[in-house]
Amino acid sequence: MSVIVVGSMAFDAIETPFGKIDRIVGGSAVYVAYAAGNFVKPIQLVSIIGADFSEEEMAELKSRGAQFEGVEIVPGKKSFFWSGRYHLDMNSRDTLITDLNVLADFNPVVPESYQGAEFLMLGNLDPTVQKKVIQQLKTRPKLIVMDTMNFWMEIALPQLEEVLKLVDVLMVNDSEARQLSGQFSLVKAAREIMKMGPKYLIIKKGEHGALLFHEERVFFAPALPLEEVFDPTGAGDTFAGGFIGHIAKTKDVSFENMKTAIIVGSAMASYCVEKFGPERLREITKEDIDNRIREFVQLVNFDIELV
Amino acid sequence: MSVIVVGSMAFDAIETPFGKIDRIVGGSAVYVAYAAGNFVKPIQLVSIIGADFSEEEMAELKSRGAQFEGVEIVPGKKSFFWSGRYHLDMNSRDTLITDLNVLADFNPVVPESYQGAEFLMLGNLDPTVQKKVIQQLKTRPKLIVMDTMNFWMEIALPQLEEVLKLVDVLMVNDSEARQLSGQFSLVKAAREIMKMGPKYLIIKKGEHGALLFHEERVFFAPALPLEEVFDPTGAGDTFAGGFIGHIAKTKDVSFENMKTAIIVGSAMASYCVEKFGPERLREITKEDIDNRIREFVQLVNFDIELV
Repeated sequence: MSVIVVGSMAFDAIETPFGKIDRIVGGSAVYVAYAAGNFVKPIQLVSIIGADFSEEEMAELKSRGAQFEGVEIVPGKKSFFWSGRYHLDMNSRDTLITDLNVLADFNPVVPESYQGAEFLMLGNLDPTVQKKVIQQLKTRPKLIVMDTMNFWMEIALPQLEEVLKLVDVLMVNDSEARQLSGQFSLVKAAREIMKMGPKYLIIKKGEHGALLFHEERVFFAPALPLEEVFDPTGAGDTFAGGFIGHIAKTKDVSFENMKTAIIVGSAMASYCVEKFGPERLREITKEDIDNRIREFVQLVNFDIELV
Repeated sequence: MSVIVVGSMAFDAIETPFGKIDRIVGGSAVYVAYAAGNFVKPIQLVSIIGADFSEEEMAELKSRGAQFEGVEIVPGKKSFFWSGRYHLDMNSRDTLITDLNVLADFNPVVPESYQGAEFLMLGNLDPTVQKKVIQQLKTRPKLIVMDTMNFWMEIALPQLEEVLKLVDVLMVNDSEARQLSGQFSLVKAAREIMKMGPKYLIIKKGEHGALLFHEERVFFAPALPLEEVFDPTGAGDTFAGGFIGHIAKTKDVSFENMKTAIIVGSAMASYCVEKFGPERLREITKEDIDNRIREFVQLVNFDIELV
């Protein structure tokens, strides 16, 4: 039950109203791996890093089931670097620095050992790269999940639309769903986006939870009301990691099981935001995760009798 | 199982991106009555109206269980009038006209026939008026629910704080909860507000659902993802009406039953926004309401096994 995870592996500098960190590991593939590794192994990474990505970081990820055969290491160059500052409400942020570094020349190569993977998670990345990975797979995975962001809608919409035709599940946030569809109503937006290719659409609404659409069906997953969001960086990727992790563990791609996968993803994301970067994800145990999932059940559980 | 409902009875002029209506009945007590009347009778109104509030409007409300002994009718004067225009996103609006008219001199009198009511719903209104009603009740109701808005926080905060000490459940929206508590995190805001008096706090988040807080417990109710919100006027009051209606019908003031009451309130509010003013609330049947509640169950229902 292997999962291929495509995405960036990076270093971030993060400033929030609560603190500041000059350098911490990040990138969509890193967060997905940390989250998914709790549910499924191996996590077959497809990414690119520079010489600055330390042995310790790699060892930590490997100890959680990550495989690096598909990760190109470029000697003498630096990994992707992102720096951002969050506003007081944590819902918006300014990007201060984006140094693509090795990511500028990323030409993904799926190693032979990854062929036959049942699940593919396309983390947020240039859609051209996402497509190249799909094209290299000799057997189509059971489920292809794609994350993306407004940036690609602005600079690479035709390429993004090409990938959309090839995937099963798309994850975007509410403003991205509106941007991509040209519809304000999320119900209408979902209908438009599902015409573009994905049979399932997950709309992430941050502190307001997430919606799953499929045909005429819809599921609403809450976000846990948190006392404090310390650092939202990577929350979306972590959500994706929990989602694909649960799907791969259960090998069940039904709508019903995707509902559960969204709750698992939400639980993982709720841990992610408690500390800088993926710090908190490194600490939590299976028991922590189960407890958090129980909190979600409590949060939304109600009984009603219709007579 | 009578319910006293205090609030405004008014006429509104409403403009939304979808249309415009120059005059339609409105006011917090009217919406609460239309919603609660589906679950409990009588609805004992405490309000004030002018000569312009027609016999037909009164007859319609009476046919749904509303009692008018506590409604002062001022001859030769006009009812409260509000006019507003919604922005494209429907989450914000501009008030164009507020003619208090008879509401300016409202001195509520609770008639003897209302004494002994088990439930009290204080619809959004001047907190001084809300307090006067509580003080006239010879027996404290089993549950006092209060709705309010930012306007009163700005111009009558000390009076509002006085009423807060006397009620069991407070309903506000998310920005009002932040304003009242001075806390951005809703979890922290809830903790602060519950220190002010109410043992239960409901935070309405519009299209993002609602949260119920009590001691250390929290419940999250979704909003139904709607294709179109035609007119949000009265949605909060309708929510309140469904809430108190279910509580009064079941006579159960437990946290568990309040969860259900919030789902019922959300179902009622989801109908309210489908047409101008309370139009849609006049059309729907018990079967419609049950169907909508079933949609809510579907919307949030998920199974998860923790092993």
